[in-house]
Amino acid sequence: MICVLAGGVGAAKFLSGLVRAVPASEVTAVVNVGDDLDLHGLRVCPDLDTVTYTLAGAVNPETGWGRAHETWNVMEGMERFGASTWFRLGDRDIATHLYRTERLRAGAGLAEVTAEIARAWGLRLHLVPATEDELRTMVTVAEGAERHEVSFQEYFVQRRHSVPVASIRFAGAETAYPAPCVLEAVVRSEAVVIAPSNPVVSIDPILAVQGLREAVGARRERVVAVSPIIGGAALKGPADRLLRELGHESSAVGVAHWYAPIAGTLVIDEVDADLAPAVEAAGMRCIVAPAVMSDPGRAEALARVVLAAAGAPVDAAAAERAPRG
Amino acid sequence: MICVLAGGVGAAKFLSGLVRAVPASEVTAVVNVGDDLDLHGLRVCPDLDTVTYTLAGAVNPETGWGRAHETWNVMEGMERFGASTWFRLGDRDIATHLYRTERLRAGAGLAEVTAEIARAWGLRLHLVPATEDELRTMVTVAEGAERHEVSFQEYFVQRRHSVPVASIRFAGAETAYPAPCVLEAVVRSEAVVIAPSNPVVSIDPILAVQGLREAVGARRERVVAVSPIIGGAALKGPADRLLRELGHESSAVGVAHWYAPIAGTLVIDEVDADLAPAVEAAGMRCIVAPAVMSDPGRAEALARVVLAAAGAPVDAAAAERAPRG
Repeated sequence: MICVLAGGVGAAKFLSGLVRAVPASEVTAVVNVGDDLDLHGLRVCPDLDTVTYTLAGAVNPETGWGRAHETWNVMEGMERFGASTWFRLGDRDIATHLYRTERLRAGAGLAEVTAEIARAWGLRLHLVPATEDELRTMVTVAEGAERHEVSFQEYFVQRRHSVPVASIRFAGAETAYPAPCVLEAVVRSEAVVIAPSNPVVSIDPILAVQGLREAVGARRERVVAVSPIIGGAALKGPADRLLRELGHESSAVGVAHWYAPIAGTLVIDEVDADLAPAVEAAGMRCIVAPAVMSDPGRAEALARVVLAAAGAPVDAAAAERAPRG
Repeated sequence: MICVLAGGVGAAKFLSGLVRAVPASEVTAVVNVGDDLDLHGLRVCPDLDTVTYTLAGAVNPETGWGRAHETWNVMEGMERFGASTWFRLGDRDIATHLYRTERLRAGAGLAEVTAEIARAWGLRLHLVPATEDELRTMVTVAEGAERHEVSFQEYFVQRRHSVPVASIRFAGAETAYPAPCVLEAVVRSEAVVIAPSNPVVSIDPILAVQGLREAVGARRERVVAVSPIIGGAALKGPADRLLRELGHESSAVGVAHWYAPIAGTLVIDEVDADLAPAVEAAGMRCIVAPAVMSDPGRAEALARVVLAAAGAPVDAAAAERAPRG
């Protein structure tokens, strides 16, 4: 068993590579739900859906999230009613939210519904939300002299993560407990991988779930993180900017300081090879390897590096047996 | 003020003609909600939406209901989850259901939400549901030797109204009270028109709302019904079959017997001119006029006949002032 702490696009790409290296049924992805939102009465779980669509081969290849061949007629219709449409939901994507919302209203837990959706897409990996309880990433932004707290998506999508961030908190974390199977996956896996996701707003809300940071830390020697910062910049999203604004170094070394308490190893890209000594000085074993997942082959190679670093078995024939997630 | 008791497609066509004959702002359409259903967590109100889309010029001209230029990607997506999709909702149409459902969950009444939707479509006529309370048309169908009760849409759409009907009831009618403005419209209008809708499953559920049958009956001399049965057949839907199966004559005369207790006048089509004496014998004044609304001009002409029959003023210049509903 391999356990992967996962955010959205970066994690989805990594998982696509991982299921070419080990059988998908041996992978549990524990996914961030701090970005989730309720919109037009629908429960939207962006990171869960990005992972699902990507592994199912149904993701929009241009954006890395949302559905391929998407249409936008529901949103266009909503505009007539003056509904807020800064967070745009595609028609094909809405089918997922409708199904999820109806199941949740009928009393099913988010873990159960997530598994149903993954199964409907033919996925064999175990996809679980970090928690079924309400946990929301809240961002205090500084706009001019004013500071105010907004939801993650109001920061990320509505403000296009272009405003300075003063602080971040995870509302509800005190009463958010791990979803079924999450703790077991962390405790019993041969490797716990921290995917190349945003440490601040994708991985931290997972670790904020009650008991999870401690459980991961207790496996520290088997925990391998992949730096999402390459050459000082995030490949996608505001990870670099957030690290800086919150007083950290926007580099693989900054990531090392961030993860050192809970992870024994950090994989950094070759362009950052000269940072390896600083990463080790931060208290992490450092592995240098190509970390830009520009195609599934490179993602698979990265996954193999990560598994080897954790001392986990790699199944050479897995790609043939499990062409899909 | 003109009050129109309205079902779906036939009523929508009649209303399109009526707002060419009188200012739309002087028309109140009291619409059947017995066909409403909850689907995928959405509140769907087929008759309200058919009237709205038709008057807004946005209806699918092929079917007479649903949106023009519709796409079906949400439904296609739902099929993956094994969701029941015999009642197909189009993407553009779903925007209406999402908006309505969210507003109802927020505590708004159906009358308020219906008015918001009508306003968003630029309609000036008053569109009101017969009741805001739950009232559902239930149909006992005879399939082979078995009888069982299904919802109206399970009869109408899922079984394509092709099974014999043993009886019909309106679940919840005992506790369904008129929506705001409904009684006022019935009591204060110069004319109360019963649109050429299905008497059994479109008009009867309106009259089943507490106090409405009595209120309409009290205006009997100002109540003009338009027969939806022409030449013994319904132009659309199962009105002819239902009348027969429930023991009535499938003709303008059968309609006359049905409406005589509450309506003083029946308008029948020219092909049924020879039935006029039988209609009068049933206790209704009979007016013979072209009643097939094959275009807006004919619908307008029919509306003028109806208004004249009720002794209501007709505004010759209304078409210029109110090109839309």
